[in-house]
Amino acid sequence: MLSNTKNRVIPPRGFAETEYLRRLLKAQSGMADAGLGAMLITTEADMYYFTGFLSQFWQSPTRPWFVVIPLEGKPIAVIPEIGVNCMKNNFMEDIRSWSSPHENDDGVSLLFETLCEVLAKSSDSKTIGINQGRETHVRMPLHNFDLLKGKLSAQDPAIDFGDATEIIRQLRMVKSETEIDKLRYVAQCASDVFENLFSFIQPGMRDDEIFRAFKIECLKAGVDDVSYLVGAAGQGGYDDIISPPKGRILRDGDVLILDTGCTFDGYFCDFDRNYGFGRINDDAIRAYDVVWQATEAGMAAAKPGNTCQDIFHAMDKIMNAGGAQGESVGRFGHGLGIQLTEPPSHTSWDNTVLEDGMVITLEPGMIFAPGRMMVHEENLVVREGGVEMLSRRADAEMPICF
Amino acid sequence: MLSNTKNRVIPPRGFAETEYLRRLLKAQSGMADAGLGAMLITTEADMYYFTGFLSQFWQSPTRPWFVVIPLEGKPIAVIPEIGVNCMKNNFMEDIRSWSSPHENDDGVSLLFETLCEVLAKSSDSKTIGINQGRETHVRMPLHNFDLLKGKLSAQDPAIDFGDATEIIRQLRMVKSETEIDKLRYVAQCASDVFENLFSFIQPGMRDDEIFRAFKIECLKAGVDDVSYLVGAAGQGGYDDIISPPKGRILRDGDVLILDTGCTFDGYFCDFDRNYGFGRINDDAIRAYDVVWQATEAGMAAAKPGNTCQDIFHAMDKIMNAGGAQGESVGRFGHGLGIQLTEPPSHTSWDNTVLEDGMVITLEPGMIFAPGRMMVHEENLVVREGGVEMLSRRADAEMPICF
Repeated sequence: MLSNTKNRVIPPRGFAETEYLRRLLKAQSGMADAGLGAMLITTEADMYYFTGFLSQFWQSPTRPWFVVIPLEGKPIAVIPEIGVNCMKNNFMEDIRSWSSPHENDDGVSLLFETLCEVLAKSSDSKTIGINQGRETHVRMPLHNFDLLKGKLSAQDPAIDFGDATEIIRQLRMVKSETEIDKLRYVAQCASDVFENLFSFIQPGMRDDEIFRAFKIECLKAGVDDVSYLVGAAGQGGYDDIISPPKGRILRDGDVLILDTGCTFDGYFCDFDRNYGFGRINDDAIRAYDVVWQATEAGMAAAKPGNTCQDIFHAMDKIMNAGGAQGESVGRFGHGLGIQLTEPPSHTSWDNTVLEDGMVITLEPGMIFAPGRMMVHEENLVVREGGVEMLSRRADAEMPICF
Repeated sequence: MLSNTKNRVIPPRGFAETEYLRRLLKAQSGMADAGLGAMLITTEADMYYFTGFLSQFWQSPTRPWFVVIPLEGKPIAVIPEIGVNCMKNNFMEDIRSWSSPHENDDGVSLLFETLCEVLAKSSDSKTIGINQGRETHVRMPLHNFDLLKGKLSAQDPAIDFGDATEIIRQLRMVKSETEIDKLRYVAQCASDVFENLFSFIQPGMRDDEIFRAFKIECLKAGVDDVSYLVGAAGQGGYDDIISPPKGRILRDGDVLILDTGCTFDGYFCDFDRNYGFGRINDDAIRAYDVVWQATEAGMAAAKPGNTCQDIFHAMDKIMNAGGAQGESVGRFGHGLGIQLTEPPSHTSWDNTVLEDGMVITLEPGMIFAPGRMMVHEENLVVREGGVEMLSRRADAEMPICF
């Protein structure tokens, strides 16, 4: 049994073949309902979800990667040769490859042939599902996508592209217990670091030194990567939560926010914590209390059968009563999994119905004075019996280092 | 003067306004030559290049981000509200925003209006340049891209999209001295860590422990992030260079490769090192020598006026003579900058002419026995007087830890 520095059990990496099969069958059921004859996957997160292919090599934009999901049978990988050994696992059987980058045919012909082969076996539908909706993009050169469409139309004018967004979205939103184990582990590691912050962050440090120290502590705590760390500090509050370090020095009177997405085996945590240093303005301390209370309301509203709108309104009510002067984030939390943010969104308009096993963040934020905001965030699982926290709940009062 | 733990001078963050202006004017000159009335930017790297907007918030796929480059005048940002403060700097003046995520119009109308306004001021061309070629993609939902195209056509049937790939590619390939300062710094930090590897990596460690220890050392050495770390170990060689850790334990007889892309202020290094532990097969030691010699040949060929093909053939010749049985990477190195890999590619077909100031990797790799490969990599600047190394040259013989 592997364990990290805190003697926390490290979940096993990867998934059993049965988990991939379950995902595949659900996707194929959705495809059949939607009248799709195949699905084409082009992005990192979806490819990891359906095949188990996990690699930081996605940092390189040079090569396109494809997976074709037929209406029946296992996914077919159509990938650059460099990835073949990494793609081999307990689930993937059909891995086709070409030498990439290629002078004039970077996978288009091989993908075209594979799609034609798969559609020929699909009795009814000639429609290829691809992500087209909210929060998605097609990760291949536009020129090659147009070329592929042209080749397919020339082959059979009945072949067209449909939207796979809802099928994949619905599937990925509800997590398995194995997925939740990974999410819980990484959130617990980050909680260790946040709870220990005053032991390695002091006034006088530059923000880049703070970021670096935080990342080192997260790695020591057992995460694979600190893929996301943003933050800010300012006298009695901050006005920006997505910036990299700029050389500012932490000083008394500052409120510091750090917001991190650490990963374990490709699964993210995403939560923040706020800290005061020295004497802090009363309005900032009040704002901390307001967003903490808003989170409590969000936790109570996060039950199966409720919607994201319910969570939004429960939190919005508390913040309005607490003096919110608006916000710039656009939502009060979101889904969480193999991306830092996933659907759904806690907004006034997202009517996604919550289900047991959904993993979400609650992220109430408000501007409480001109140029000063307070954002708070927790990670949790929606459960029949009430939420299960993945991050360990923040202190009810802002931690202050004197 | 800021310095890191090795008393290396840390380059200043950001760029002077003059650098952004120079990039803009060159882009606009290319646009005029290509008959483009505007350019539309949708991806992280291009947006950082043209505006200075740097944020790990790109990890979230939820919101689209746009920059419109007019034929004359500064770029116009069309971005979610959450990014406005982060976008403000010494260069950007026109920042337009909407509350995102949005129920039914996630930036499309605002982008449409901005494009119409910019094209109306462009006397001749109604063509909007967008990246369509090799190594690019459009980062916005396909459905919204189609919607945008439809709205523009309805507004004026003469409006269409053209290819901006070559303009941006040519511009970004040649680095300024300020960019090179950042690249040199991060490559030197990583060199510190590689040269010190036997002090923190020993047989008996699990691969995930090795990765974590390496990342901590890189952060201590002064990098912002270890955005890319892949590697493998195997008896007398390895068969895969892009995988994450899988729980394997390092042991005597192993050759270990680690390949890292660390960043400083958004600029990457990308090089690897190979190490032996205990008694290593002679053929692996010979293969190390072959790829090291191939790199020497690549360095000699990397001069202004030569092409990437020249580099490829110089290296290929050495490896063929040295017993190469093929390779799976598809090229022997590439450009380097604000992405882990950038154009050009050292292949038999890339005829890009090398220029003073281009920053490239040399990455000879070969299969030297069934299931065993050896890949080596260095980072350098193409200079009139001969290459300037950014990574400190690897040992001529494989370092072995007994």
